[in-house]
This record gives sequence, structure tokens and C-alpha cells, in this order.
Amino acid sequence: MQRSNGLLDRRAFLVGSAGLVSATVLAGTQTKEPWRSGPGQPMSAYGSPSPYVSLKRLQITGHPLAPEAGASSTPLERLNGTLTPNSLHFERHHSGIPNIDPSRHRLQIIGRVERPQSFGYEDLLRYPMVSRILFIECSGNSYANTLPQALDKTAGELNGLFSCAEWTGIPLRLLLEEAGFDPKSDWLVAEGADAAGMNRSLPLDLALEDAMVALFQNGEPLRGEQGFPMRLLVPGCEGNLSIKWLRSVEVRKGPAHTREETSKYTDLFKNGRADQFSLRMDVKSVITNPSGQMGLPNHGVYEVSGLAWSGHGSIDSVDVSADGGSSWRRAEIQSQPGPYRPVRFRIPWRWTGQPAVLQSRASDSAGHQQPTRAEALTNSAPGLTYHYNGIQSWQVAQSGRVSNVFL
Amino acid sequence: MQRSNGLLDRRAFLVGSAGLVSATVLAGTQTKEPWRSGPGQPMSAYGSPSPYVSLKRLQITGHPLAPEAGASSTPLERLNGTLTPNSLHFERHHSGIPNIDPSRHRLQIIGRVERPQSFGYEDLLRYPMVSRILFIECSGNSYANTLPQALDKTAGELNGLFSCAEWTGIPLRLLLEEAGFDPKSDWLVAEGADAAGMNRSLPLDLALEDAMVALFQNGEPLRGEQGFPMRLLVPGCEGNLSIKWLRSVEVRKGPAHTREETSKYTDLFKNGRADQFSLRMDVKSVITNPSGQMGLPNHGVYEVSGLAWSGHGSIDSVDVSADGGSSWRRAEIQSQPGPYRPVRFRIPWRWTGQPAVLQSRASDSAGHQQPTRAEALTNSAPGLTYHYNGIQSWQVAQSGRVSNVFL
Repeated sequence: MQRSNGLLDRRAFLVGSAGLVSATVLAGTQTKEPWRSGPGQPMSAYGSPSPYVSLKRLQITGHPLAPEAGASSTPLERLNGTLTPNSLHFERHHSGIPNIDPSRHRLQIIGRVERPQSFGYEDLLRYPMVSRILFIECSGNSYANTLPQALDKTAGELNGLFSCAEWTGIPLRLLLEEAGFDPKSDWLVAEGADAAGMNRSLPLDLALEDAMVALFQNGEPLRGEQGFPMRLLVPGCEGNLSIKWLRSVEVRKGPAHTREETSKYTDLFKNGRADQFSLRMDVKSVITNPSGQMGLPNHGVYEVSGLAWSGHGSIDSVDVSADGGSSWRRAEIQSQPGPYRPVRFRIPWRWTGQPAVLQSRASDSAGHQQPTRAEALTNSAPGLTYHYNGIQSWQVAQSGRVSNVFL
Repeated sequence: MQRSNGLLDRRAFLVGSAGLVSATVLAGTQTKEPWRSGPGQPMSAYGSPSPYVSLKRLQITGHPLAPEAGASSTPLERLNGTLTPNSLHFERHHSGIPNIDPSRHRLQIIGRVERPQSFGYEDLLRYPMVSRILFIECSGNSYANTLPQALDKTAGELNGLFSCAEWTGIPLRLLLEEAGFDPKSDWLVAEGADAAGMNRSLPLDLALEDAMVALFQNGEPLRGEQGFPMRLLVPGCEGNLSIKWLRSVEVRKGPAHTREETSKYTDLFKNGRADQFSLRMDVKSVITNPSGQMGLPNHGVYEVSGLAWSGHGSIDSVDVSADGGSSWRRAEIQSQPGPYRPVRFRIPWRWTGQPAVLQSRASDSAGHQQPTRAEALTNSAPGLTYHYNGIQSWQVAQSGRVSNVFL
């Protein structure tokens, strides 16, 4: 069942797998267990991770004189499954996290509407909601892989401006209908209540389709850094569009061409063309285990696993290569796929101790396939760091060390 | 479209709903927003809730002389969606939370096996895993509703020994196969590394079906209070069976009749019969909003929503009554159902200001329907507080106050 690149059928692991991973201590010779000698800590009102688990978001940008403008990334290589715990969801702030008193915050629906609305937080809690598991990805995620040299960083440092949560909120359509929006309008402008006054234009059609005003994240009220008390959430689109601390939605004709969609978040190509409003995030995947800066302790079988997602729909399949793209094998997607919902893919791999290059390549329900790095950069002007979705390559050295590499 | 009990079709809310919830401040007259006057807090390595959100688990049992033996419950009424954030997952400890160093912890597979195994944490991280969204419910959840008098408590205080997470781990079957278990065996005994040495017997068939050794919870490594570094997870079964801090699994013939399945966790009936190993949790639901101790601020439309789950499969439907069970209306289940996966149900309701009693009634894929309280208690001996799944009734007084009531 084994292929030359060491990728195995999942069933190969599931049957007759004795000794695939060496159990180094004989059963019966249990190690000392000092924690069994007396009672442990009692219950708590609000839990925290084990002292033996240190999980951190890495702050990857931010000027020393303006520490409140920057980003922090999710440590993807430390996680498994598909969700991101709220404390580790990536951040991107333009002027820090406003500390908003929900009883003094309003969401206004204004502009080309029959009945301008102003909703309080408690009002909105009474409205019909939906819950969906959705990714948010910063348009600039993985920008380091657009640079000329491959940086020796972790999966999260490179690709962790990407997170996933179960978001619960009110369909924006419902609030627009309550305001009686003018159907001859075609754009909205959403604005946040941070000091930056972050604002973005979005097509009305997109908003009516499935945008929501999110109030809950993985069950609990939004975190401050995710827009408490409320944020816009536009599934599948660049994170910047999902305005946090949402204070107003203006119905209008035409986009507003705000700073964030002119000087920023436009895509410049080699032929001189610049795309504005390239909103949807493309099909993408990344192997999180094994990944950058890890070390394989010895030869033998490992589960290769990672995340795949698309802003154009749901993930159809993920192929994995262990020889830098010469051959591919279909990975298992065991979690339930859905639109804009990331999946975890998994495939067993037997490492023989020879150098190898691990890659994953995702395909989505819209027929897109993730490009190689070279393909992804073909038309980009130098310095274009948005919407990069090239295949991530991890080199495994003979020593077992794993590092980011450009093929 | 309105029914006498005020329950509305979801579309009634979604079209022509202007003014259903009064927007008390006119648009344009935005309140003062002091948080916009300057930069907010910068990014952080590990996030925490907004200072305006105080979420707590309630410690509901525990002796002053042994605070490490007890439980804490999830504040269900403060949450929405289906997941429980890790910091709010319910706890039940018999001797507190052992602070386990994962590098010194072993999981042994012993007993009727060809090759006894001893797995380290790092070994297990290399094994094939699965990720599933599953509930865990304590067998004693909702026990207060078996008492003669209805206690005026919140939804979480009454029913919050119930939580839900995406669990990621290794199928136990795989580890048993690696040890070469004797197929003529029929039971396992699993033991935890806490000072209580919590242990339970489970049928081998059940373990082979879909039990896992869980290592991750909502993406991140297990929390200490949930069994770090590893726990057993037996989907759909009483929480006590999902042994935390798992240190050994013994393959054997017949159950061990441990303390936890003889003096505890057996069900005594009026006819003198006592059921041991009544492992599966029955179909159940609870309205979390509106719920106990809340107050409805004024007449008008509210979304009634709650959680439903079953240990016998997936949820098929949930009906809601606003008149104490005289009439029922089908609620919407908008999230994706699945085996042992809770759903969030939702239905709009127009409160006219008259007293009302809100109830929910779930049905599962195995054909079970949630019983009334009287039906659920018919055969129980006095003092039986396990496996109670009667319908939860919330009375709405003319004042708008909501309280637990027995019909």
C-alpha cells in the first residue's frame, strides 16, 4: 500500500499497525505520578490552559510608537481540529481595541433607507440569529511567502492571519429590510467605532446574500479584539471587510473609495492594472503538522495534517505530496465541509529519514485549485502581498528539522 | 400567520417586520462614544473577554472541607450558538484537577492484550486523529428538576452540567488494535490519574464504535479541568464515563463494578430495580433565551432559542410551546445536525404581556421524544437524580420576569 513518497492509505494505519510508533516505556512500568498523591486544584469560575501549555499569538507588525496598530497571528502549528479558541483568534487593529460600553453603543442603518434605524445591543439580542462555522482570513495572510527569500518561520507565523470560529449573529439583510432600504441602491459603507474609524464599502448584493452582524463567537459574546459588542461578518471575504465595533451601515449608490480600499487593499499587477474590491479569498491550504521549526524525533509514521478553506465555497478535496509535488495522494477530510468552513485534512506518512518536501493542494466547489507559488505570483507586481494563496512547502531535512522553503 | 400562543413563522420576522423591536434612539443622534477619541489597547499574546462581559461558571456542589470535589456549571443563558468556550466548559471533579506534566504521563493499554502498550504524549501526537463536535453531559444534569419544588434558578444553574466542544483525538480502537486486544474480551476499565483514581467500566463494543482518546478541545490542547494531557471521550454517554487524565485502559471480561458504577451512577426505580450501566444520555432540550431569572423589558417580538441533543443519535426536530404544552410549533434548526452533536433551535415569539409558559420538546433520530416532567419521573424512585430529561418549563409573569416552574 505504500507509495514511493511514503504517503499511506489511512487504512494502512488503522489495521496491522503494531509498532508504528514505538512505545518506549514498557507497560506496567508506569512513571512516578506525584499528582496522584493528593487532591488537585478545585473548580474555578473561568478556566485557563494547563500550566504546561503555553499558547501565544505572535505580534507580527506594529510600530514601537503606535503599538495599537498591528496584528497578531494564530499559532496554527499548536492547534488541531478546525476551530480557533477565542483567546488565540488572530487580530488586526488599525488603532487598537476600543473598550466599548455596550449600553452606550448604537448600530445605525442610514443613507438610502425609508426609516433610519438605531439599534442598541439589548435590542439586537431579541432578533433572529444564525450560527455558522466560518473562517476569517486577512487579505495579507502569508505575505512573507511573496518575498524573494523563504523565511524560516512557523506555520502560524507565516499563515496565522487566519482563524475559524462559530459565529452567531443577525442576518444584515433583516436589519436593512427593517430600515426599508432603497432597492435601487447598490453599495453599503460600514464603519467601526474604533479611533481609526475603519470603514469599507461592500456591494449590496453581497450583504444581502449572507453577511451578518455577529454578536457571539464560539458561544460567548464577542471578544473586544474581535469587535465587541458587534461586528460585521462577510463570509469568505478578506477580513478587513468584516468591520469590527460596527457603528453604522450606510446604504448608497456606488462605493465610497475609502482609504482602506484605495491606498490599501488593492492588488497591483505587472501589467499596471490595479484591482479594487477583490473581496473573496481564494482556495488555500497549509500543512500545520509537521511544519516550520518542528523536528521529527525519529523515522517512522506521522500523521500529516492541516487546514484548507476557500472564499468561493466549500473544500472538495486536498492532495498531499511528500516529494515536492512530483506525486500526490488524496488526503482524508474527516470533518463536515460547508461554504466558507475550513476543513482539517489528514494523511499518514512514513518518513524514511531521507530529505522530503511536504505540500498540500486544495480544490474548492467552484472548481478552483490552489496554485504553486510560482503560478500565484505570475502576474503580481513586486510588493503585492494581498490574496496570496500559493502552495506552502515544508522541507524535512535529514536531521528531521522542518523549514519553510520555496521550490 | 400568528398563532394564539404568539409563536411566529420565521419568515414573519424576516419580511415586513418594521418596528418589531423598537429602536429607541433616532438614527443620527448617536450617543457619546468616548472610545473613539484615542487609540485603544494593543494586541495581546492571549486574549480575554471584554471587561463589560462577566461570564462565570457557577460552583454548584462541593463540601467546604473538600473544595476539590464538586462541579461547576456552564452559564447556558449567556451563550448562543452551539459551542461552549473552553473556559466555560462544565467541570466535575472527584479529587480536583491534577497538574500533570505531559512528559511524565503515560497511557497504558493492559489486560487481555497480546502486546501491552505504554504511550507518551508526544507518541500520541503522531497518531491519526478525528475531530468531532460532541456534547458532554453529566448524568446528574438537571437533577434540581427532580426535586419536589421548582427552584428559581437560571438555565445554566439548572441544566449547565452540559457543554459542547470540537474534540480531536485518536480512535481508541486504533490503540486497542496496536495492543492486539483479545476479541473474546467484552469490557474495558478506564482509569484516571487524579488522586481519586476515578475508574469506570465500559463495554468493548461501545469503545470500538467511536470512543476516542481526546487531546484537543476547540482547537487547543485539552484544559487541565478537562483532562490534560488526555481524556477518554465516549460520545453520547454520561460524562462520568469519559475518564479525564486517562492513564490506563484494561481489557477484560466483564465489568469491574467500581465505586462509581455501584454506589454512584446507578438508577433506582420504584419497582426496586436498579439499572447499572445506563450509559446513553436521553433526548433533551432546554430553552436558554428567555430563561430563568431574566426579565422581558417590554411587549413585542423575541427570538426564543435553545439547545437540543441526544445520546441516541442526532436531533430530528424541536417543537416549542408558549402555552405550557397546549399547542406546539416547529422551531427552526439552522445549524447542521449530527450524531451526539447539539443543535441550536430558534423560533420568533410575540409576547403580548400576558402570562405564558415556554417549553421545548426535542425528538431524535432513534425515534425518542423528550417526555414531560411527570412522564420522566413516573418510574423513578425518590432520590433518583440521574438521566433526567423532562421538558423544562419557563413561566413568564405579567411583569416579564421568567422563572422555573413545574406544571
